[in-house]
Amino acid sequence: MYAIGIDVGGTNTDMGLVSEEGKIVARRRFSTSKYNNFQQYIHDMMDELKQLLATVSADFSNVEGIGIGAPNANYYTRCVENAMNLSMKGLLNFGDEIKRYVDVPVALSNDANAAAYGEYIYGGAKGMKNFIMFTLGTGVGSGIVIDGRLLLGSTGAAGELGHAILVPDGRQCSCGLRGCTEAYASSRGILQTYAELRASHDALHRDDNEPTTPGWIDHNRALTDLSCKDLGDAANAGDPLAIKAFEITAHYLGMAMANAVAFSSPSAIFLMGGPTLVGEPLLAPLRREFEKHLLYNYKGTCKVRMSELRANEVAILGAAAVIKMK
Amino acid sequence: MYAIGIDVGGTNTDMGLVSEEGKIVARRRFSTSKYNNFQQYIHDMMDELKQLLATVSADFSNVEGIGIGAPNANYYTRCVENAMNLSMKGLLNFGDEIKRYVDVPVALSNDANAAAYGEYIYGGAKGMKNFIMFTLGTGVGSGIVIDGRLLLGSTGAAGELGHAILVPDGRQCSCGLRGCTEAYASSRGILQTYAELRASHDALHRDDNEPTTPGWIDHNRALTDLSCKDLGDAANAGDPLAIKAFEITAHYLGMAMANAVAFSSPSAIFLMGGPTLVGEPLLAPLRREFEKHLLYNYKGTCKVRMSELRANEVAILGAAAVIKMK
Repeated sequence: MYAIGIDVGGTNTDMGLVSEEGKIVARRRFSTSKYNNFQQYIHDMMDELKQLLATVSADFSNVEGIGIGAPNANYYTRCVENAMNLSMKGLLNFGDEIKRYVDVPVALSNDANAAAYGEYIYGGAKGMKNFIMFTLGTGVGSGIVIDGRLLLGSTGAAGELGHAILVPDGRQCSCGLRGCTEAYASSRGILQTYAELRASHDALHRDDNEPTTPGWIDHNRALTDLSCKDLGDAANAGDPLAIKAFEITAHYLGMAMANAVAFSSPSAIFLMGGPTLVGEPLLAPLRREFEKHLLYNYKGTCKVRMSELRANEVAILGAAAVIKMK
Repeated sequence: MYAIGIDVGGTNTDMGLVSEEGKIVARRRFSTSKYNNFQQYIHDMMDELKQLLATVSADFSNVEGIGIGAPNANYYTRCVENAMNLSMKGLLNFGDEIKRYVDVPVALSNDANAAAYGEYIYGGAKGMKNFIMFTLGTGVGSGIVIDGRLLLGSTGAAGELGHAILVPDGRQCSCGLRGCTEAYASSRGILQTYAELRASHDALHRDDNEPTTPGWIDHNRALTDLSCKDLGDAANAGDPLAIKAFEITAHYLGMAMANAVAFSSPSAIFLMGGPTLVGEPLLAPLRREFEKHLLYNYKGTCKVRMSELRANEVAILGAAAVIKMK
C-alpha cells in the first residue's frame, strides 16, 4: 500500500507516492497560485493524483490514505482556515471535498506538525516517544510529539513555539505580538540581529577605505540584499559580525528550546530548515546555550538532533505521515 | 472503595481517606521532619494508615490504592529523588517499601502534578481533556493535562513551567537559572517586585513625615516583615505601589500563561495558591495580560479559572487522584 503525501504551498502543490519503506516512488507538482476556486483546485488535484498513480501502474485501491500538509490546517476539522499565503480564501474543507471523488482516509495537518510526524514515521525520531521538532525558515514552526502522539490540544492548533514570547516587550513579530521566538530565530530574525550588530559596529568603527576580507560581508553591501545563507557563508569564513549574529541567535533559540524541555521533557529536540544548514557557527553555540539554560534535573536528558529527512522530501514525507497520526 | 491520599511535606505528612464522591471522610497528620530513616518512616506511616482506616471501620481491602504527592517524586520509578526540603536523603523508593506491608496499587507524583490531577478527578476540571494548572506559592509549579492524561515526558518530570525562562538574563532564580517565571510570579517574586518599586519610589518621593494612609503599607516597615498577603490587603485598600506590584506580576504571569497556550492549546488554565487569594488586584490585570499576549488563533479559546478545591484539601485530594492517573 502507498501513502499519498500532498504539500499545499502558496505557489505550488507537491504530491508524492510514498512506499511502506518511506521511499518516494513518484512525485508531481502543479500550481496552487493560479486557483481561486477551491472546487476546481480539488477537481484538478484528483486528476493529478490519478496520473501520479498511473506512473507506477497503481490506482486508489493501492492507497492507504491521503495526508495533506498545509498552512493553518486543522487536524480535527480537516479544513484549512484563513491561510494568509493561499490564493483560495475562507474555509477550505479538504476532507469533505476529496471524499466526493474517492473513498480513502484523508488527514490534514499544518506544515510543522507534519514535519515532526514525518520525522517520527520516516526519519531520525523513529521509535522515539517524546520529542519536539523546530522548523526554522522565514518563520519558526514546531511540532510536539508526546507518547508517540502529535500534540494537538483543545483547538487542534497546539505547538506554536515560534510564538512563545521570549523577550517581554521585545522585537515586533509578524504575528502582532512582541518578543516571539520567531522574531529572533527565523531567518528574518537572524538578519535583523546582524543588521543591528552592523549598525552599532559601523557607528563606532566604520572605515570606508578598509579593504574587505575575502568571504566576509562587505559593509557597503545593502542589508536587503543579504540572505541567511550569505550570513552563514560569511560566518564560516570567519566574519566576526556574522559569527556574533549566530551566537546571539543561539542564545535566544537555546533558551526557547530549554523552555520547551521544561514543558514536555522530550528525549530529543530536532531542528530543520535553512538556518540550520549554516552548521557549526549556529549549532556549536546552540548546543551550549541550550544545555546551559536547562533546569538542573533536565540537564543531559535531551539531545539536540538534525532532521534526517532530505530538504526536498520532508514536505511530502511529512504530509504522508499525517495519515498515520494517532 | 476508598482512595488514600498522602501528602509528604517537609514538616508534616498529611493523609486522608477519600470516598468515590471525592469527600475526605477521615484524615491524620504526623511529623515528617523527625525521620531520617526512610524504613522507619514508612513503618510508622503504615501504622498511621491502619489507624486512619479504623476510624471508619475499614481496612486495606476497602482501599483502591495509595496515591502520594511529594517533592521531586517520579511517577515512573515511584521514587523521590534528592528532595531538598526532606530530612530523609537519597533515593526514597516509596513504591517498593510500601509493597512490603500491603498489596495495593501505589502511585507517586510531585505536588503540582498531583494538584492538577486532583482538579481533574475531584475539582473544576472534571471532564476537561486539556488544561494546565499553575500553583503559585513560595515557588511556581505546574501540572499539564493533555487528552485526559498527565504530561510526564521522557524523564517523568515534565511540566516545570515555573522554570521556563521569561526574561533572558533576568532575575536570579533559586534554581540557579536567571529570569524564570518563578522569579517573577512566586510570592517571593511578587515581594521583590514590590521592593524594587518602593526603592525607586522612595528615591524620588520619600517624605518621612507624610501621614500613612490606613490600610496602605507604611514605607518605614521593613520589607523582610512583609508577606504576599500583606501586599494583597494593601492593594485591596488602594495602595498604589502594591497595586502596581500586582500589575507587573500579571504582566509577566500573563505572558507565561500565554506561552503555555502556544504549547498545548488547553481549554483552561487553572490557578491556585496564596498569591491568587489576593483577588482582583492580581486577577483583573492577569486576565487582560493573558489574553493580550495570546497568538491570534488562540484568542478566546482558553479560560482562566480558579481551582475549585479547598486550600486545606487539595494536597490530599491531589495525592489520592494520582492513583487514577492514566
